[in-house]
Amino acid sequence: MLRIIFLLSLLFALSNAYVQDFCVANLKRAETPAGYPCIRPIHVKAKDFVFSLGTPGNTTNIISAAVTPGFSAQFPGLNGLGLSTARLDLAPKGVIPMHTHPGASEVLFVLDGYITAGFVSSANSVYVQTLKPGQVMVFPQGLLHFQINAGKSAAAAFVTFSSASPGLQILDFALFANSLPTELISATTFLDPALVKKLKGVLGGTG
Amino acid sequence: MLRIIFLLSLLFALSNAYVQDFCVANLKRAETPAGYPCIRPIHVKAKDFVFSLGTPGNTTNIISAAVTPGFSAQFPGLNGLGLSTARLDLAPKGVIPMHTHPGASEVLFVLDGYITAGFVSSANSVYVQTLKPGQVMVFPQGLLHFQINAGKSAAAAFVTFSSASPGLQILDFALFANSLPTELISATTFLDPALVKKLKGVLGGTG
Amino acid sequence: MLRIIFLLSLLFALSNAYVQDFCVANLKRAETPAGYPCIRPIHVKAKDFVFSLGTPGNTTNIISAAVTPGFSAQFPGLNGLGLSTARLDLAPKGVIPMHTHPGASEVLFVLDGYITAGFVSSANSVYVQTLKPGQVMVFPQGLLHFQINAGKSAAAAFVTFSSASPGLQILDFALFANSLPTELISATTFLDPALVKKLKGVLGGTG
Amino acid sequence: MLRIIFLLSLLFALSNAYVQDFCVANLKRAETPAGYPCIRPIHVKAKDFVFSLGTPGNTTNIISAAVTPGFSAQFPGLNGLGLSTARLDLAPKGVIPMHTHPGASEVLFVLDGYITAGFVSSANSVYVQTLKPGQVMVFPQGLLHFQINAGKSAAAAFVTFSSASPGLQILDFALFANSLPTELISATTFLDPALVKKLKGVLGGTG
Amino acid sequence: MLRIIFLLSLLFALSNAYVQDFCVANLKRAETPAGYPCIRPIHVKAKDFVFSLGTPGNTTNIISAAVTPGFSAQFPGLNGLGLSTARLDLAPKGVIPMHTHPGASEVLFVLDGYITAGFVSSANSVYVQTLKPGQVMVFPQGLLHFQINAGKSAAAAFVTFSSASPGLQILDFALFANSLPTELISATTFLDPALVKKLKGVLGGTG
Amino acid sequence: MLRIIFLLSLLFALSNAYVQDFCVANLKRAETPAGYPCIRPIHVKAKDFVFSLGTPGNTTNIISAAVTPGFSAQFPGLNGLGLSTARLDLAPKGVIPMHTHPGASEVLFVLDGYITAGFVSSANSVYVQTLKPGQVMVFPQGLLHFQINAGKSAAAAFVTFSSASPGLQILDFALFANSLPTELISATTFLDPALVKKLKGVLGGTG
Repeated sequence: MLRIIFLLSLLFALSNAYVQDFCVANLKRAETPAGYPCIRPIHVKAKDFVFSLGTPGNTTNIISAAVTPGFSAQFPGLNGLGLSTARLDLAPKGVIPMHTHPGASEVLFVLDGYITAGFVSSANSVYVQTLKPGQVMVFPQGLLHFQINAGKSAAAAFVTFSSASPGLQILDFALFANSLPTELISATTFLDPALVKKLKGVLGGTG
Repeated sequence: MLRIIFLLSLLFALSNAYVQDFCVANLKRAETPAGYPCIRPIHVKAKDFVFSLGTPGNTTNIISAAVTPGFSAQFPGLNGLGLSTARLDLAPKGVIPMHTHPGASEVLFVLDGYITAGFVSSANSVYVQTLKPGQVMVFPQGLLHFQINAGKSAAAAFVTFSSASPGLQILDFALFANSLPTELISATTFLDPALVKKLKGVLGGTG
Repeated sequence: MLRIIFLLSLLFALSNAYVQDFCVANLKRAETPAGYPCIRPIHVKAKDFVFSLGTPGNTTNIISAAVTPGFSAQFPGLNGLGLSTARLDLAPKGVIPMHTHPGASEVLFVLDGYITAGFVSSANSVYVQTLKPGQVMVFPQGLLHFQINAGKSAAAAFVTFSSASPGLQILDFALFANSLPTELISATTFLDPALVKKLKGVLGGTG
Repeated sequence: MLRIIFLLSLLFALSNAYVQDFCVANLKRAETPAGYPCIRPIHVKAKDFVFSLGTPGNTTNIISAAVTPGFSAQFPGLNGLGLSTARLDLAPKGVIPMHTHPGASEVLFVLDGYITAGFVSSANSVYVQTLKPGQVMVFPQGLLHFQINAGKSAAAAFVTFSSASPGLQILDFALFANSLPTELISATTFLDPALVKKLKGVLGGTG
Repeated sequence: MLRIIFLLSLLFALSNAYVQDFCVANLKRAETPAGYPCIRPIHVKAKDFVFSLGTPGNTTNIISAAVTPGFSAQFPGLNGLGLSTARLDLAPKGVIPMHTHPGASEVLFVLDGYITAGFVSSANSVYVQTLKPGQVMVFPQGLLHFQINAGKSAAAAFVTFSSASPGLQILDFALFANSLPTELISATTFLDPALVKKLKGVLGGTG
Repeated sequence: MLRIIFLLSLLFALSNAYVQDFCVANLKRAETPAGYPCIRPIHVKAKDFVFSLGTPGNTTNIISAAVTPGFSAQFPGLNGLGLSTARLDLAPKGVIPMHTHPGASEVLFVLDGYITAGFVSSANSVYVQTLKPGQVMVFPQGLLHFQINAGKSAAAAFVTFSSASPGLQILDFALFANSLPTELISATTFLDPALVKKLKGVLGGTG
């Protein structure tokens, strides 16, 4: 049934061929352009490769929605593997506002409910679809996109990104929730300064 | 409220700056190392970016499991974006047999049921976890891994890969379901030739 | 002074080692995820590697500015080399509105005049500087940024991107100059529907 | 014969343009996803770029074969350059068992003797060839492959990989030489538990 | 005009999703194959993304030319973004000698004057053009190229590279300004040893 | 010994998951920046992955050396896999003249004889070693390097590159074997015009 084998000498021959199959992030060390330095393989445990996105985020906020990230900073086993994850929750009328991921394309899988999602291309074309559970939509890298609850019950989705550090730039926050001067915003978006100031007030921006 | 604007001249100035945000696969054309050639942007529709993985695969087979791929060949909008997708279904006692994806890391999100999943590293370490709905596990590129139903009811998962062409090499098929000669298999796996022939018989292999 | 040499036989030995140093775009062929197919090397001419960005764009428009692209579609010699170019012209009070390049980082070199430029990060931090001729600013990939004439005379800049297809998504156009429904825009940007409709009217959008 | 030149001022002008042509590994520092940090250029010596694979590995083992790696860990000059090396030695009847390199394609050059080598694709096709000295075979990334002595004398080969960290997963070791539970192995490979236990006994596995 | 919004709870939900939009170089830390480790985002300032190339380099040298680099070492904000910069100045009769950038393609924009530039391909074809202000030329990665003042007044150019570490190998320096033995140079370039020694004398080489 | 299995239904479920493990070059089609389009998998044969470099090149020429390439154009199975190959032969006193590979790092394995090899870095440092059979040397991408027979008998080496299209630019050919005008060569290399013309005469250059 089996040839008698004794491979231990081979095992020893290969034991100095250490190779990097993965690179679990050492979050205490400075990042590099390719991600965090790795913890030593001997300290890696199975649970480093597992993360939980099973608990809905808290949607009792004005947008009735939540984004729960599972990026390298939360899920160190992803570091260097070219992928990251997140969970979206949208209560009825919930909205994930217009945003981009500067460094990654995104795939969204609808877990529950109905979600209207869309993106706009560089050529200014609009691609919008209403998705039901089990449907997948892909959003190409860096383009403005959004998700909105299209049903009457809660909706949820699992998303993955083509980078361990996809980034997340929410349009309203980028424009109105920081110190970017009102006159620059107004000049570069053609929105009335009074409106800009009003939005800054609501979103906590200054200037 | 708004400065009067008339951007059309800018619009014209930019209209010749065609850029490639995405590359929906033209499956009738020969692939390249970077994926399929693109269909013309004017022919791209919103539904090209959507795929359905909502229907469980047929698990009335001997492994009580099914893999439903959503790679570039099924989901052309993924082409060139560095991501692909699939759905796993595992009936009670169902098993996704030991396999590798030669060209991609994988993230698995448990939709229903309980799944015991694991992988083995180049250093021959074993990383196994039993996952519940909402948990995510990452499998580094090219390593042997498996998923098995750990509960009494059907289990399902949504998976994404860090490439539009991750590949899928199922160990038993690679060894026993083709024309690889029995003597080579036996010599390189240390399995008894009679066993190899028996497995070939079951799996439809020859030689 | 020189050892007598006769390398022709070596020359013949190497003549079949054709290699791809560059890949001048054949714009008549379908793109691939890595760019356009190459024209045959025998048809490549020195002028394929040259492009002119010396003529200011026409700034007699409402934004008093112009972007002149030198991407693969205009400058085929760039194809596959990971770089592209453009020229910005800003008349007094001219503005390059808030925009992103989904697929590339950007380096800007001020040729003439004074330019206030800035970007916002995923962490919502603001980085703004006023630049004079000869100064360079880098804008990381995919982040919202803008340029505005900060002086009293015309300003101009030469920009390069870290991809032959950087993309260009102008915020106002993406939001207001296409068929994205007003209700979706309003829901995902928190702008009042009446304002959205007004902006659509100005920018030629529908819906 | 030569225009009088004095380039030293140019030399000084350029002396602060330090650039990274190579990155000899500092093996004492933690790896990153892109490899080891570099030692300082001033400490780099010519011998850092040289490694010896001239001595046959010890083949007095049950597989009558040996793999001698020249990866970043043994040959630090390779770090960051996208290549690594190894030497294979096969005594008569020697076998490099079925294995994969999760992170690299491989090129094999036969130095001595005759080697039958092959791989299996994701589409389950078999590609086997018997090679003589001076022949080269390429094994695409991540696919199961093997090498076996096809002659009556010792055989040897020099191999290179398309990554400084190609990884090496030997099928028998991954299945039978660690703590992966017998029931999981049996369930995912369809091998009889008694056989699995027997193989574990031979290869030193537990569970 | 605006729906009342209060996004702060969303803001908190996202605040732990730290992502790496950029990686300003910490020049005090060892480089990695992907560049320098990043300084902490909290220490990043707008001026880290700005560099000045507005001052002409000193051309009072024998080549009547100067290269002023703006690579990661001088301009830390470029680190990890796949781009770097430089300024060329050529007094009348000035020459940037034959050189290569081992790790990057280059785009050159003529600021002032007339520049004759060219490169030679692997197929030994010559691509030379005389450029005027506003013209752009691209030099594919790793190929020998040069720039020479083609007019009677000073010329200047702004260049960018497709890597933060493009490298710069000046042919005369590589051959004659170091310790490479005369006999090796002569043997590999077919230049007469006496000439090589003479050139070494002029350029400060030894051996 | 084996659980009865019948995986055919799984096989069918997976049969439409075509994936690209490799991309054997269709040399009749135009290249792309990522390589040649692939021939259809059904037409791929085992011998597409094999190439012979066992025959020494003809060294009866003035450099007493030969380079035999095994790039994509000669060895189509390499296409898209990030590797290519070549064989070097050096008769006594043979020389592979100073050259670069613009697009790849190189690993050299000495098959026979003694070879003195070296490269020069951007920092103008010299790294030279004399290698014996079985020794390996790595040459970082794009840097000037050479190989010279250091013994009294024939020498040979097998080399691999980190790209399927490494390029090959031989310094003497690039300078003296084409139509690059003598005055430009002289101006950019500081070699005397009379010497340049003489070398052009020997190497077949014009201008």
